[in-house]
Amino acid sequence: MNKNILGIDWGTSNRRAYLIAPSGACLAEHEDGQGMLAVGSRDQFGASLAGVLDAMRLPAETPVIMSGMVGSASGWQEVDYLDASVPLEQLPRHLAAITDAAWSGRAHIVPGYVYRNGASADVMRGEETQLLGAIALGQRNGWIVLPGTHSKWVLLRDGVIQSFATYMTGELFAMLSKGGTLSSMMNGDTSDAAGFAAGLTQAARNEPLSNSLFRVRAGVVSRSAPAQQAAATVSGLLIGAEFAAAARAAEGQGITVIGSPALAARYALAAENFGLHCKVLDPHAVYCTAISQFIKA
Amino acid sequence: MNKNILGIDWGTSNRRAYLIAPSGACLAEHEDGQGMLAVGSRDQFGASLAGVLDAMRLPAETPVIMSGMVGSASGWQEVDYLDASVPLEQLPRHLAAITDAAWSGRAHIVPGYVYRNGASADVMRGEETQLLGAIALGQRNGWIVLPGTHSKWVLLRDGVIQSFATYMTGELFAMLSKGGTLSSMMNGDTSDAAGFAAGLTQAARNEPLSNSLFRVRAGVVSRSAPAQQAAATVSGLLIGAEFAAAARAAEGQGITVIGSPALAARYALAAENFGLHCKVLDPHAVYCTAISQFIKA
Repeated sequence: MNKNILGIDWGTSNRRAYLIAPSGACLAEHEDGQGMLAVGSRDQFGASLAGVLDAMRLPAETPVIMSGMVGSASGWQEVDYLDASVPLEQLPRHLAAITDAAWSGRAHIVPGYVYRNGASADVMRGEETQLLGAIALGQRNGWIVLPGTHSKWVLLRDGVIQSFATYMTGELFAMLSKGGTLSSMMNGDTSDAAGFAAGLTQAARNEPLSNSLFRVRAGVVSRSAPAQQAAATVSGLLIGAEFAAAARAAEGQGITVIGSPALAARYALAAENFGLHCKVLDPHAVYCTAISQFIKA
Repeated sequence: MNKNILGIDWGTSNRRAYLIAPSGACLAEHEDGQGMLAVGSRDQFGASLAGVLDAMRLPAETPVIMSGMVGSASGWQEVDYLDASVPLEQLPRHLAAITDAAWSGRAHIVPGYVYRNGASADVMRGEETQLLGAIALGQRNGWIVLPGTHSKWVLLRDGVIQSFATYMTGELFAMLSKGGTLSSMMNGDTSDAAGFAAGLTQAARNEPLSNSLFRVRAGVVSRSAPAQQAAATVSGLLIGAEFAAAARAAEGQGITVIGSPALAARYALAAENFGLHCKVLDPHAVYCTAISQFIKA
Protein backbone atom coordinates (compact mmCIF):
# COMPACT_ATOMS: atom_id res chain seq x y z
CA MET A 1 0.00 0.00 0.00
CA ASN A 2 1.20 3.49 -0.68
CA LYS A 3 -1.72 5.62 0.37
CA ASN A 4 -3.31 6.99 3.48
CA ILE A 5 -4.45 4.50 6.14
CA LEU A 6 -6.92 4.95 8.94
CA GLY A 7 -5.40 3.56 12.12
CA ILE A 8 -7.81 2.84 14.97
CA ASP A 9 -6.74 2.12 18.51
CA TRP A 10 -9.97 0.37 19.52
CA GLY A 11 -9.93 -0.34 23.23
CA THR A 12 -12.35 -1.54 25.88
CA SER A 13 -13.93 1.85 26.66
CA ASN A 14 -12.73 4.27 23.99
CA ARG A 15 -11.41 4.37 20.47
CA ARG A 16 -9.08 6.81 18.77
CA ALA A 17 -8.75 7.02 14.98
CA TYR A 18 -5.91 8.69 13.07
CA LEU A 19 -5.65 9.18 9.31
CA ILE A 20 -2.00 8.55 8.58
CA ALA A 21 -0.02 9.53 5.45
CA PRO A 22 2.81 7.31 4.16
CA SER A 23 5.22 9.86 5.69
CA GLY A 24 3.80 9.06 9.13
CA ALA A 25 2.10 12.46 9.32
CA CYS A 26 -1.28 12.49 11.03
CA LEU A 27 -3.82 14.15 8.69
CA ALA A 28 -6.96 13.88 10.83
CA GLU A 29 -8.07 12.52 14.20
CA HIS A 30 -11.29 11.28 15.73
CA GLU A 31 -11.98 10.03 19.24
CA ASP A 32 -15.16 8.73 20.82
CA GLY A 33 -16.51 6.50 23.58
CA GLN A 34 -17.49 3.66 21.22
CA GLY A 35 -15.07 1.17 22.78
CA MET A 36 -15.64 -2.57 22.56
CA LEU A 37 -18.11 -2.56 25.47
CA ALA A 38 -20.22 0.27 24.00
CA VAL A 39 -20.49 -1.42 20.59
CA GLY A 40 -21.93 -4.46 22.32
CA SER A 41 -22.55 -7.36 19.96
CA ARG A 42 -20.19 -8.62 17.28
CA ASP A 43 -22.54 -7.80 14.39
CA GLN A 44 -22.54 -4.10 15.30
CA PHE A 45 -18.82 -3.47 14.69
CA GLY A 46 -19.21 -2.97 10.94
CA ALA A 47 -21.79 -0.24 11.37
CA SER A 48 -19.71 1.25 14.15
CA LEU A 49 -16.62 1.44 11.92
CA ALA A 50 -18.71 2.93 9.10
CA GLY A 51 -19.68 5.61 11.62
CA VAL A 52 -16.02 6.53 12.13
CA LEU A 53 -15.37 6.84 8.39
CA ASP A 54 -18.52 8.90 8.08
CA ALA A 55 -17.62 11.20 10.99
CA MET A 56 -14.18 11.77 9.46
CA ARG A 57 -15.69 12.19 5.92
CA LEU A 58 -13.49 9.44 4.53
CA PRO A 59 -14.41 7.22 1.57
CA ALA A 60 -15.75 3.78 2.47
CA GLU A 61 -12.79 2.11 0.72
CA THR A 62 -10.17 3.75 3.01
CA PRO A 63 -7.90 0.94 4.29
CA VAL A 64 -8.27 0.48 8.03
CA ILE A 65 -5.79 -1.01 10.53
CA MET A 66 -7.25 -1.70 13.98
CA SER A 67 -5.51 -2.72 17.17
CA GLY A 68 -6.60 -3.35 20.74
CA MET A 69 -9.56 -5.18 22.24
CA VAL A 70 -11.39 -5.11 18.89
CA GLY A 71 -9.39 -8.30 18.20
CA SER A 72 -10.37 -10.07 21.45
CA ALA A 73 -12.98 -12.78 22.00
CA SER A 74 -15.47 -10.04 22.94
CA GLY A 75 -14.48 -7.80 20.02
CA TRP A 76 -15.27 -7.80 16.30
CA GLN A 77 -13.21 -10.83 15.38
CA GLU A 78 -10.94 -12.83 17.66
CA VAL A 79 -7.34 -12.81 16.41
CA ASP A 80 -4.89 -15.32 17.90
CA TYR A 81 -2.02 -13.94 19.94
CA LEU A 82 1.43 -14.09 18.38
CA ASP A 83 4.14 -15.70 20.45
CA ALA A 84 6.55 -13.19 21.99
CA SER A 85 9.37 -14.61 19.84
CA VAL A 86 7.85 -13.22 16.62
CA PRO A 87 9.74 -9.98 15.78
CA LEU A 88 7.53 -6.89 16.07
CA GLU A 89 8.65 -5.73 12.62
CA GLN A 90 6.92 -8.80 11.19
CA LEU A 91 3.53 -7.56 12.45
CA PRO A 92 2.51 -6.35 8.94
CA ARG A 93 2.67 -9.98 7.74
CA HIS A 94 0.35 -11.17 10.51
CA LEU A 95 -2.58 -8.82 10.05
CA ALA A 96 -5.97 -10.55 10.20
CA ALA A 97 -8.44 -9.44 7.51
CA ILE A 98 -11.99 -8.81 8.67
CA THR A 99 -14.14 -11.61 7.28
CA ASP A 100 -17.49 -10.12 8.37
CA ALA A 101 -19.74 -10.41 5.28
CA ALA A 102 -21.49 -7.22 6.36
CA TRP A 103 -18.25 -5.26 5.88
CA SER A 104 -17.28 -4.58 2.28
CA GLY A 105 -14.29 -2.32 2.91
CA ARG A 106 -10.65 -3.22 3.61
CA ALA A 107 -10.03 -3.60 7.32
CA HIS A 108 -7.40 -5.56 9.25
CA ILE A 109 -6.71 -6.26 12.89
CA VAL A 110 -3.18 -6.24 14.35
CA PRO A 111 -2.65 -9.39 16.49
CA GLY A 112 -1.70 -9.10 20.13
CA TYR A 113 1.11 -11.03 21.81
CA VAL A 114 1.28 -13.72 24.47
CA TYR A 115 4.36 -14.24 26.61
CA ARG A 116 4.60 -17.66 28.25
CA ASN A 117 6.93 -18.28 31.16
CA GLY A 118 6.51 -21.78 32.56
CA ALA A 119 2.87 -22.20 33.57
CA SER A 120 2.35 -18.45 33.63
CA ALA A 121 1.18 -16.27 30.75
CA ASP A 122 0.82 -12.56 30.09
CA VAL A 123 -0.95 -10.95 27.14
CA MET A 124 -1.20 -7.65 25.28
CA ARG A 125 -3.55 -6.25 22.66
CA GLY A 126 -2.83 -2.77 21.32
CA GLU A 127 0.54 -2.21 22.95
CA GLU A 128 2.26 -4.25 20.21
CA THR A 129 1.37 -1.45 17.79
CA GLN A 130 2.99 1.13 20.06
CA LEU A 131 6.06 -1.11 20.31
CA LEU A 132 6.32 -1.26 16.53
CA GLY A 133 6.28 2.55 16.48
CA ALA A 134 8.93 2.76 19.20
CA ILE A 135 11.16 0.40 17.24
CA ALA A 136 10.73 2.50 14.09
CA LEU A 137 11.80 5.49 16.19
CA GLY A 138 15.00 3.69 17.16
CA GLN A 139 14.03 1.99 20.44
CA ARG A 140 15.03 -1.56 19.47
CA ASN A 141 16.46 -2.53 22.85
CA GLY A 142 15.77 -2.14 26.56
CA TRP A 143 12.74 -1.51 28.71
CA ILE A 144 9.65 0.10 27.22
CA VAL A 145 6.99 1.10 29.75
CA LEU A 146 3.40 1.77 28.66
CA PRO A 147 1.58 3.14 31.70
CA GLY A 148 -2.21 3.15 32.12
CA THR A 149 -5.16 1.02 33.18
CA HIS A 150 -2.99 -2.03 32.57
CA SER A 151 0.62 -0.87 32.62
CA LYS A 152 3.03 -2.92 30.52
CA TRP A 153 6.77 -3.33 31.07
CA VAL A 154 8.34 -4.83 27.96
CA LEU A 155 11.97 -5.85 27.52
CA LEU A 156 13.08 -5.60 23.88
CA ARG A 157 16.18 -7.08 22.31
CA ASP A 158 16.88 -6.09 18.73
CA GLY A 159 13.17 -5.48 18.10
CA VAL A 160 12.03 -8.77 19.66
CA ILE A 161 10.11 -9.09 22.93
CA GLN A 162 12.25 -10.88 25.52
CA SER A 163 9.59 -10.72 28.23
CA PHE A 164 6.74 -8.54 29.39
CA ALA A 165 4.61 -8.03 32.48
CA THR A 166 1.27 -6.30 33.01
CA TYR A 167 0.33 -4.39 36.18
CA MET A 168 -3.32 -3.50 36.87
CA THR A 169 -2.19 -0.12 38.21
CA GLY A 170 -4.83 2.17 36.74
CA GLU A 171 -7.65 -0.30 37.25
CA LEU A 172 -6.83 -0.90 40.93
CA PHE A 173 -6.46 2.84 41.54
CA ALA A 174 -9.89 3.47 40.00
CA MET A 175 -11.50 0.65 42.04
CA LEU A 176 -10.01 1.86 45.31
CA SER A 177 -11.10 5.45 44.56
CA LYS A 178 -14.65 4.44 43.72
CA GLY A 179 -15.61 2.40 46.75
CA GLY A 180 -14.47 0.67 49.92
CA THR A 181 -12.36 1.59 52.90
CA LEU A 182 -9.93 3.98 51.19
CA SER A 183 -12.25 5.83 48.83
CA SER A 184 -13.50 8.42 51.33
CA MET A 185 -9.92 9.64 51.86
CA MET A 186 -8.87 9.56 48.19
CA ASN A 187 -10.18 12.98 47.19
CA GLY A 188 -6.81 14.72 47.42
CA ASP A 189 -4.44 15.59 44.57
CA THR A 190 -3.05 12.36 43.09
CA SER A 191 0.16 14.14 42.16
CA ASP A 192 0.89 15.52 45.66
CA ALA A 193 4.69 15.19 45.73
CA ALA A 194 5.14 14.18 49.39
CA GLY A 195 2.28 11.66 49.29
CA PHE A 196 3.53 10.13 46.02
CA ALA A 197 7.08 9.86 47.39
CA ALA A 198 5.78 8.18 50.57
CA GLY A 199 4.00 5.59 48.43
CA LEU A 200 7.13 4.94 46.33
CA THR A 201 9.28 4.50 49.44
CA GLN A 202 6.77 2.09 50.89
CA ALA A 203 6.54 0.14 47.62
CA ALA A 204 10.32 -0.30 47.56
CA ARG A 205 9.98 -2.45 50.71
CA ASN A 206 8.19 -5.14 48.71
CA GLU A 207 5.54 -5.71 51.35
CA PRO A 208 2.15 -7.07 50.26
CA LEU A 209 -0.02 -4.46 48.60
CA SER A 210 -3.10 -5.62 50.56
CA ASN A 211 -1.22 -4.59 53.72
CA SER A 212 0.40 -1.35 52.53
CA LEU A 213 -2.94 -0.11 51.15
CA PHE A 214 -4.57 -0.63 54.55
CA ARG A 215 -1.72 1.24 56.22
CA VAL A 216 -2.55 4.30 54.13
CA ARG A 217 -5.88 4.31 55.92
CA ALA A 218 -4.34 3.43 59.28
CA GLY A 219 -1.91 6.34 58.91
CA VAL A 220 -4.80 8.75 58.45
CA VAL A 221 -7.07 7.46 61.23
CA SER A 222 -4.15 7.28 63.69
CA ARG A 223 -3.19 10.85 62.67
CA SER A 224 0.28 9.81 61.41
CA ALA A 225 -0.35 10.99 57.82
CA PRO A 226 -2.51 13.75 56.31
CA ALA A 227 -5.68 12.54 54.54
CA GLN A 228 -5.09 14.88 51.59
CA GLN A 229 -1.96 12.86 50.68
CA ALA A 230 -3.74 9.49 50.64
CA ALA A 231 -4.63 9.44 46.92
CA ALA A 232 -1.06 10.29 45.91
CA THR A 233 0.30 7.67 48.33
CA VAL A 234 -1.92 4.98 46.80
CA SER A 235 -0.72 6.08 43.34
CA GLY A 236 2.88 5.86 44.58
CA LEU A 237 2.27 2.39 46.04
CA LEU A 238 0.83 1.06 42.79
CA ILE A 239 3.34 2.67 40.42
CA GLY A 240 6.14 1.91 42.88
CA ALA A 241 5.21 -1.79 42.80
CA GLU A 242 5.97 -1.81 39.07
CA PHE A 243 9.37 -0.26 39.66
CA ALA A 244 10.16 -2.45 42.66
CA ALA A 245 9.58 -5.52 40.48
CA ALA A 246 11.52 -4.32 37.46
CA ALA A 247 14.10 -1.88 38.81
CA ARG A 248 16.82 -4.44 39.44
CA ALA A 249 16.44 -5.88 35.95
CA ALA A 250 16.49 -2.40 34.40
CA GLU A 251 19.49 -1.19 36.38
CA GLY A 252 22.06 0.52 34.19
CA GLN A 253 19.72 0.46 31.19
CA GLY A 254 17.03 2.96 32.07
CA ILE A 255 13.50 2.88 30.69
CA THR A 256 11.54 4.48 27.85
CA VAL A 257 8.04 5.56 28.85
CA ILE A 258 5.36 5.94 26.18
CA GLY A 259 2.67 7.92 27.96
CA SER A 260 0.65 11.11 28.13
CA PRO A 261 2.54 14.06 29.67
CA ALA A 262 0.84 13.84 33.09
CA LEU A 263 1.33 10.09 33.45
CA ALA A 264 4.83 10.15 31.97
CA ALA A 265 5.83 12.85 34.46
CA ARG A 266 4.77 10.62 37.33
CA TYR A 267 6.71 7.66 35.93
CA ALA A 268 9.76 9.87 35.38
CA LEU A 269 9.58 10.90 39.05
CA ALA A 270 9.31 7.26 40.12
CA ALA A 271 12.24 6.33 37.85
CA GLU A 272 14.37 9.01 39.49
CA ASN A 273 13.37 7.67 42.90
CA PHE A 274 14.46 4.16 41.87
CA GLY A 275 17.70 5.42 40.30
CA LEU A 276 16.72 4.73 36.69
CA HIS A 277 17.31 6.97 33.70
CA CYS A 278 14.00 7.71 31.98
CA LYS A 279 13.21 8.80 28.41
CA VAL A 280 9.67 9.80 27.39
CA LEU A 281 8.01 9.29 24.01
CA ASP A 282 4.71 10.86 23.00
CA PRO A 283 2.11 8.09 22.48
CA HIS A 284 0.41 9.89 19.54
CA ALA A 285 3.67 10.30 17.64
CA VAL A 286 4.59 6.68 18.36
CA TYR A 287 1.20 5.44 17.20
CA CYS A 288 1.29 7.42 13.95
CA THR A 289 4.79 6.13 13.23
CA ALA A 290 3.57 2.58 13.85
CA ILE A 291 0.70 2.89 11.38
CA SER A 292 3.04 4.29 8.75
CA GLN A 293 5.02 1.04 9.05
CA PHE A 294 1.95 -0.83 7.81
CA ILE A 295 1.73 1.53 4.82
CA LYS A 296 5.36 0.85 3.94
CA ALA A 297 5.01 -2.91 4.32
CA MET B 1 -20.04 -6.61 87.87
CA ASN B 2 -21.30 -10.10 88.48
CA LYS B 3 -24.29 -10.31 86.22
CA ASN B 4 -25.13 -10.90 82.59
CA ILE B 5 -23.66 -8.52 80.04
CA LEU B 6 -24.76 -7.81 76.50
CA GLY B 7 -21.71 -7.87 74.27
CA ILE B 8 -22.08 -6.24 70.84
CA ASP B 9 -19.61 -6.67 68.02
CA TRP B 10 -20.69 -3.52 66.12
CA GLY B 11 -18.94 -3.38 62.80
CA THR B 12 -19.14 -1.34 59.61
CA SER B 13 -21.91 -3.33 57.93
CA ASN B 14 -23.33 -5.66 60.56
CA ARG B 15 -23.66 -6.10 64.29
CA ARG B 16 -23.88 -9.22 66.41
CA ALA B 17 -25.12 -9.14 70.01
CA TYR B 18 -24.62 -11.89 72.59
CA LEU B 19 -26.05 -12.03 76.12
CA ILE B 20 -23.22 -13.48 78.17
CA ALA B 21 -23.41 -15.04 81.65
CA PRO B 22 -20.51 -14.69 84.13
CA SER B 23 -19.57 -18.29 83.25
CA GLY B 24 -18.97 -17.21 79.66
CA ALA B 25 -22.06 -19.06 78.47
CA CYS B 26 -24.01 -17.37 75.68
CA LEU B 27 -27.67 -17.07 76.76
CA ALA B 28 -29.10 -15.33 73.68
CA GLU B 29 -27.95 -13.97 70.32
CA HIS B 30 -29.12 -11.32 67.90
CA GLU B 31 -27.70 -10.31 64.55
CA ASP B 32 -28.78 -7.61 62.10
CA GLY B 33 -27.55 -5.33 59.34
CA GLN B 34 -27.52 -2.18 61.48
CA GLY B 35 -23.79 -1.67 61.23
CA MET B 36 -22.18 1.74 61.62
CA LEU B 37 -22.99 2.78 58.06
CA ALA B 38 -26.68 1.81 58.32
CA VAL B 39 -27.16 3.73 61.59
CA GLY B 40 -25.91 6.83 59.84
CA SER B 41 -25.60 9.82 62.13
CA ARG B 42 -24.10 9.84 65.62
CA ASP B 43 -27.36 10.80 67.36
CA GLN B 44 -29.11 7.67 66.07
CA PHE B 45 -26.89 5.15 67.90
CA GLY B 46 -28.81 5.36 71.19
CA ALA B 47 -32.12 4.52 69.54
CA SER B 48 -30.39 1.82 67.53
CA LEU B 49 -28.99 0.18 70.68
CA ALA B 50 -32.39 0.43 72.38
CA GLY B 51 -33.72 -1.49 69.39
CA VAL B 52 -31.31 -4.36 70.10
CA LEU B 53 -32.34 -4.56 73.78
CA ASP B 54 -35.96 -4.46 72.70
CA ALA B 55 -35.52 -7.16 70.04
CA MET B 56 -33.81 -9.38 72.65
CA ARG B 57 -36.45 -8.50 75.32
CA LEU B 58 -33.76 -7.32 77.71
CA PRO B 59 -34.28 -4.66 80.41
CA ALA B 60 -33.02 -1.18 79.52
CA GLU B 61 -30.50 -1.31 82.38
CA THR B 62 -28.63 -4.34 80.97
CA PRO B 63 -24.92 -3.45 80.93
CA VAL B 64 -23.59 -3.29 77.38
CA ILE B 65 -20.02 -3.73 76.12
CA MET B 66 -19.49 -2.73 72.50
CA SER B 67 -16.48 -3.23 70.26
CA GLY B 68 -15.65 -2.49 66.64
CA MET B 69 -16.31 0.50 64.41
CA VAL B 70 -18.90 1.85 66.87
CA GLY B 71 -15.86 3.43 68.58
CA SER B 72 -14.47 5.06 65.43
CA ALA B 73 -14.72 8.69 64.29
CA SER B 74 -17.76 7.72 62.22
CA GLY B 75 -19.31 5.66 65.03
CA TRP B 76 -21.24 6.52 68.18
CA GLN B 77 -18.33 7.96 70.12
CA GLU B 78 -14.68 8.06 69.06
CA VAL B 79 -12.45 6.18 71.47
CA ASP B 80 -8.69 6.71 71.26
CA TYR B 81 -6.59 3.73 70.23
CA LEU B 82 -4.48 2.11 72.93
CA ASP B 83 -0.81 1.67 72.16
CA ALA B 84 0.12 -1.92 71.29
CA SER B 85 2.27 -2.10 74.44
CA VAL B 86 -0.80 -2.02 76.73
CA PRO B 87 -1.50 -5.65 77.81
CA LEU B 88 -4.77 -6.97 76.40
CA GLU B 89 -5.82 -8.18 79.86
CA GLN B 90 -5.90 -4.51 80.93
CA LEU B 91 -8.69 -3.78 78.43
CA PRO B 92 -11.38 -3.81 81.18
CA ARG B 93 -9.64 -0.78 82.76
CA HIS B 94 -9.74 1.18 79.52
CA LEU B 95 -13.41 0.94 78.60
CA ALA B 96 -14.93 4.25 77.47
CA ALA B 97 -18.35 5.03 78.95
CA ILE B 98 -20.96 6.35 76.53
CA THR B 99 -21.49 10.02 77.38
CA ASP B 100 -24.43 10.55 75.01
CA ALA B 101 -27.06 12.39 77.11
CA ALA B 102 -29.77 10.63 75.11
CA TRP B 103 -28.62 7.24 76.49
CA SER B 104 -29.56 6.58 80.09
CA GLY B 105 -28.35 2.97 80.30
CA ARG B 106 -24.86 1.62 81.06
CA ALA B 107 -22.88 1.15 77.90
CA HIS B 108 -19.14 1.06 77.27
CA ILE B 109 -16.91 0.83 74.21
CA VAL B 110 -13.76 -1.32 74.11
CA PRO B 111 -10.85 0.74 72.68
CA GLY B 112 -8.99 -0.45 69.62
CA TYR B 113 -5.21 -0.62 69.26
CA VAL B 114 -2.62 1.19 67.19
CA TYR B 115 0.74 -0.36 66.35
CA ARG B 116 3.40 2.14 65.31
CA ASN B 117 6.54 1.01 63.52
CA GLY B 118 8.69 3.96 62.47
CA ALA B 119 6.56 6.24 60.28
CA SER B 120 4.09 3.45 59.62
CA ALA B 121 0.96 2.64 61.62
CA ASP B 122 -1.61 -0.14 61.68
CA VAL B 123 -4.90 -0.13 63.59
CA MET B 124 -7.58 -2.50 64.85
CA ARG B 125 -11.06 -2.03 66.28
CA GLY B 126 -12.96 -5.11 67.38
CA GLU B 127 -10.18 -7.67 67.00
CA GLU B 128 -8.72 -6.67 70.41
CA THR B 129 -11.82 -8.18 72.01
CA GLN B 130 -11.26 -11.47 70.17
CA LEU B 131 -7.61 -11.39 71.29
CA LEU B 132 -8.68 -10.98 74.91
CA GLY B 133 -10.86 -14.07 74.52
CA ALA B 134 -8.05 -16.04 72.90
CA ILE B 135 -5.74 -15.14 75.78
CA ALA B 136 -8.35 -16.27 78.32
CA LEU B 137 -8.48 -19.55 76.40
CA GLY B 138 -4.73 -19.97 76.82
CA GLN B 139 -3.33 -18.40 73.63
CA ARG B 140 -0.94 -15.95 75.29
CA ASN B 141 1.88 -16.32 72.76
CA GLY B 142 2.47 -16.67 69.06
CA TRP B 143 0.61 -15.73 65.90
CA ILE B 144 -3.13 -15.16 66.00
CA VAL B 145 -4.79 -14.77 62.61
CA LEU B 146 -8.23 -13.16 62.27
CA PRO B 147 -9.28 -13.62 58.64
CA GLY B 148 -11.97 -11.57 56.92
CA THR B 149 -12.61 -8.28 55.13
CA HIS B 150 -9.48 -6.92 56.80
CA SER B 151 -7.42 -9.90 57.92
CA LYS B 152 -5.21 -9.32 60.95
CA TRP B 153 -2.00 -11.15 61.80
CA VAL B 154 -1.09 -10.46 65.42
CA LEU B 155 2.03 -11.61 67.24
CA LEU B 156 1.43 -12.02 70.98
CA ARG B 157 4.02 -12.39 73.70
CA ASP B 158 2.70 -13.18 77.15
CA GLY B 159 -0.62 -11.51 76.39
CA VAL B 160 0.92 -8.36 74.89
CA ILE B 161 0.84 -7.39 71.22
CA GLN B 162 4.36 -7.41 69.76
CA SER B 163 3.22 -6.35 66.29
CA PHE B 164 0.30 -6.70 63.95
CA ALA B 165 -0.47 -6.25 60.27
CA THR B 166 -3.76 -5.86 58.40
CA TYR B 167 -4.40 -7.25 54.90
CA MET B 168 -7.38 -6.02 52.86
CA THR B 169 -7.95 -9.57 51.64
CA GLY B 170 -11.75 -9.80 51.81
CA GLU B 171 -12.28 -6.25 50.60
CA LEU B 172 -10.02 -6.64 47.56
CA PHE B 173 -11.61 -9.99 46.70
CA ALA B 174 -15.08 -8.40 46.83
CA MET B 175 -13.98 -5.43 44.69
CA LEU B 176 -12.38 -7.63 42.05
CA SER B 177 -15.47 -9.88 41.94
CA LYS B 178 -17.86 -6.97 41.56
CA GLY B 179 -16.37 -5.07 38.65
CA GLY B 180 -13.42 -4.68 36.31
CA THR B 181 -11.30 -6.97 34.20
CA LEU B 182 -11.43 -10.08 36.37
CA SER B 183 -15.05 -10.03 37.54
CA SER B 184 -16.53 -11.73 34.48
CA MET B 185 -14.35 -14.80 35.12
CA MET B 186 -14.82 -14.91 38.90
CA ASN B 187 -18.09 -16.85 38.98
CA GLY B 188 -16.45 -20.20 39.77
CA ASP B 189 -16.16 -21.94 43.14
CA THR B 190 -13.85 -19.89 45.38
CA SER B 191 -12.78 -23.05 47.19
CA ASP B 192 -11.76 -24.97 44.05
CA ALA B 193 -8.70 -26.84 45.36
CA ALA B 194 -6.51 -26.68 42.24
CA GLY B 195 -7.26 -23.00 41.62
CA PHE B 196 -6.63 -22.06 45.25
CA ALA B 197 -3.34 -23.99 45.28
CA ALA B 198 -2.24 -22.25 42.07
CA GLY B 199 -2.88 -18.87 43.72
CA LEU B 200 -0.92 -19.86 46.84
CA THR B 201 2.03 -21.07 44.77
CA GLN B 202 2.02 -17.83 42.81
CA ALA B 203 1.79 -15.74 46.00
CA ALA B 204 4.84 -17.49 47.45
CA ARG B 205 6.90 -15.91 44.65
CA ASN B 206 6.36 -12.46 46.17
CA GLU B 207 5.63 -10.82 42.83
CA PRO B 208 3.47 -7.67 42.81
CA LEU B 209 -0.22 -8.40 43.28
CA SER B 210 -1.17 -5.96 40.48
CA ASN B 211 0.78 -8.22 38.12
CA SER B 212 -0.23 -11.64 39.43
CA LEU B 213 -3.91 -10.64 39.37
CA PHE B 214 -3.63 -9.69 35.69
CA ARG B 215 -1.96 -13.00 34.94
CA VAL B 216 -5.05 -14.80 36.25
CA ARG B 217 -6.91 -13.14 33.39
CA ALA B 218 -4.05 -13.67 30.93
CA GLY B 219 -4.00 -17.37 31.82
CA VAL B 220 -7.68 -17.69 30.94
CA VAL B 221 -7.67 -15.67 27.70
CA SER B 222 -4.52 -17.45 26.47
CA ARG B 223 -6.17 -20.79 27.36
CA SER B 224 -3.44 -21.74 29.86
CA ALA B 225 -5.84 -21.94 32.84
CA PRO B 226 -9.53 -22.83 33.16
CA ALA B 227 -11.85 -19.86 33.82
CA GLN B 228 -13.76 -21.77 36.50
CA GLN B 229 -10.63 -21.76 38.69
CA ALA B 230 -10.08 -17.99 38.47
CA ALA B 231 -12.04 -17.03 41.61
CA ALA B 232 -10.21 -19.61 43.72
CA THR B 233 -6.87 -18.51 42.26
CA VAL B 234 -7.56 -14.88 43.20
CA SER B 235 -8.50 -16.05 46.70
CA GLY B 236 -5.25 -18.04 46.86
CA LEU B 237 -3.24 -15.03 45.68
CA LEU B 238 -4.73 -12.75 48.34
CA ILE B 239 -4.59 -15.21 51.24
CA GLY B 240 -1.21 -16.43 50.05
CA ALA B 241 0.15 -12.86 50.21
CA GLU B 242 -0.60 -12.85 53.95
CA PHE B 243 1.29 -16.10 54.43
CA ALA B 244 4.17 -15.10 52.18
CA ALA B 245 4.67 -12.01 54.34
CA ALA B 246 4.37 -13.74 57.70
CA ALA B 247 5.42 -17.32 57.07
CA ARG B 248 9.11 -16.82 57.74
CA ALA B 249 8.40 -15.04 61.00
CA ALA B 250 5.93 -17.72 62.06
CA GLU B 251 8.21 -20.64 61.16
CA GLY B 252 8.41 -23.24 63.92
CA GLN B 253 5.61 -21.54 65.87
CA GLY B 254 2.52 -22.17 63.80
CA ILE B 255 -0.58 -19.99 63.84
CA THR B 256 -3.95 -19.88 65.60
CA VAL B 257 -6.81 -18.91 63.30
CA ILE B 258 -9.99 -17.42 64.79
CA GLY B 259 -12.47 -17.74 61.94
CA SER B 260 -15.72 -19.26 60.70
CA PRO B 261 -15.40 -22.91 59.60
CA ALA B 262 -15.34 -22.14 55.86
CA LEU B 263 -12.74 -19.39 56.14
CA ALA B 264 -10.67 -21.23 58.75
CA ALA B 265 -10.56 -24.30 56.48
CA ARG B 266 -9.08 -22.19 53.70
CA TYR B 267 -6.47 -20.69 56.02
CA ALA B 268 -5.63 -24.16 57.36
CA LEU B 269 -5.03 -25.30 53.78
CA ALA B 270 -2.81 -22.28 53.12
CA ALA B 271 -0.91 -22.92 56.37
CA GLU B 272 -0.22 -26.49 55.29
CA ASN B 273 0.98 -25.22 51.93
CA PHE B 274 3.39 -22.83 53.67
CA GLY B 275 4.56 -25.50 56.13
CA LEU B 276 2.93 -23.98 59.21
CA HIS B 277 1.05 -25.80 61.94
CA CYS B 278 -2.45 -24.35 62.28
CA LYS B 279 -4.91 -24.42 65.18
CA VAL B 280 -8.49 -23.15 64.75
CA LEU B 281 -10.64 -21.41 67.36
CA ASP B 282 -14.36 -20.74 66.93
CA PRO B 283 -14.95 -16.95 66.81
CA HIS B 284 -18.26 -17.14 68.70
CA ALA B 285 -16.75 -19.08 71.58
CA VAL B 286 -13.76 -16.72 71.67
CA TYR B 287 -16.00 -13.67 71.69
CA CYS B 288 -18.22 -14.97 74.51
CA THR B 289 -15.13 -15.80 76.58
CA ALA B 290 -13.83 -12.28 75.97
CA ILE B 291 -17.05 -10.64 77.19
CA SER B 292 -17.01 -12.82 80.32
CA GLN B 293 -13.60 -11.29 81.12
CA PHE B 294 -15.29 -7.90 81.38
CA ILE B 295 -17.85 -9.39 83.81
CA LYS B 296 -15.07 -10.78 86.00
CA ALA B 297 -13.08 -7.54 85.94
